[in-house]
Amino acid sequence: MTQYTTLYQHGTLALLVPGLLTGTLKMGDLLKHGDTGIGTGEGLDGELIILDGEPYQVDSEGNVNLVTDSFNMPFANIHYDHYSKLVELADTSQQGLEKKVRALTNGTNTFFSIKITGTFSGIKTRAVKKSVPPFQTLAETARNQSIFTRDQVNGTMISYYSPELFDGAAVAGFHHHFLSDDHKFGGHVLAFHLDKGTVSYQLFDTLEQHLPISNDAYMNHDFSADNISDAIHDAEG
Amino acid sequence: MTQYTTLYQHGTLALLVPGLLTGTLKMGDLLKHGDTGIGTGEGLDGELIILDGEPYQVDSEGNVNLVTDSFNMPFANIHYDHYSKLVELADTSQQGLEKKVRALTNGTNTFFSIKITGTFSGIKTRAVKKSVPPFQTLAETARNQSIFTRDQVNGTMISYYSPELFDGAAVAGFHHHFLSDDHKFGGHVLAFHLDKGTVSYQLFDTLEQHLPISNDAYMNHDFSADNISDAIHDAEG
Repeated sequence: MTQYTTLYQHGTLALLVPGLLTGTLKMGDLLKHGDTGIGTGEGLDGELIILDGEPYQVDSEGNVNLVTDSFNMPFANIHYDHYSKLVELADTSQQGLEKKVRALTNGTNTFFSIKITGTFSGIKTRAVKKSVPPFQTLAETARNQSIFTRDQVNGTMISYYSPELFDGAAVAGFHHHFLSDDHKFGGHVLAFHLDKGTVSYQLFDTLEQHLPISNDAYMNHDFSADNISDAIHDAEG
Repeated sequence: MTQYTTLYQHGTLALLVPGLLTGTLKMGDLLKHGDTGIGTGEGLDGELIILDGEPYQVDSEGNVNLVTDSFNMPFANIHYDHYSKLVELADTSQQGLEKKVRALTNGTNTFFSIKITGTFSGIKTRAVKKSVPPFQTLAETARNQSIFTRDQVNGTMISYYSPELFDGAAVAGFHHHFLSDDHKFGGHVLAFHLDKGTVSYQLFDTLEQHLPISNDAYMNHDFSADNISDAIHDAEG
């Protein structure tokens, strides 16, 4: 049975903070839980966006690659696409769009996704360069990131909203990944302006939070000294 | 397919804090997700423990009642019993038992359950008296609680352990509910000593977190002013 109201999450953002970057779920297994999503590869190997069941990686060179079922990830979100149209917007800032979505959906105490298709301007993305063991912290690893910008580009943004209560497991608030229609540009979104586009919405009543219990480094880690929330919002903001 | 590694949770402990105590899941629906669990009724109507698929309520008079499928709850945890024996213990304090379990299981970065069967002494439980709308805060409502004690009693304790990262969604650390073998004593456990008993263990790799998205009071509530963590540990400690 397809669960349109379930958001599946593998790993937590918190585990990235101290550098638990080993891949603990393969793309083939992730795709058993949905056809639409975001994530990152082992060692923060690029930024992932999954559209219509196709898993794209934007690497630190800015290339967009399709990854295979054996691609390994420490963190990912996925769900089955069942969006409803929420609103058409034109000439809207990122802040304005997020505010509009909050006001229209009344969904901020649960998890939801928005999909935005249209023309974006001043869009800035990043993709981290894959690191290898021994892994450094999220902050150290994310220093090896590339920033990409486009003045104007058509594409699709997949965003997840997580309630404040789950900050650390996820990023509280919005988390946006992007892929251009020509598959030549994308990544984790740092800033954007929507020239004209359609915002669709899908509300979840369930977070299926899967943890990497077979990974000893995760199971043995003492998180008490990690400043999870600050580190996430520095790195993911 | 029975999911022995999934812990299902309806609601969050955070929503109890400001007094969102309306029942949002019926027992009949909860029991579709397991046969073993804990919870509370609408308006904090007693303390629940589910054993072998039978849902028992300890009410504020200290009576143990079987509840029906229509019994409504704001918060509950449930899973399918698939425990493995962890250790036999004798003359062990609550603190000693929790420390032993942490050391033996290495499970403190994920969710797990322990089931303890045996003879307990100096066990202290509580059950809150059901309140009616308009509901007060968790702290106000929990003032109408009864405390019960037994010098020595045979019974079963069902406990969930939640990682620190999920404090607020659940109670970080251990959360124990008890039912005596004679079904005359039980509730939310405040203190105990294990005279002699068997501790069994079941590790979860998945938290299936279900939220009451059809409840307007929940969806419209502004949690930003609620001091969730302190309030939970005052009330649930």
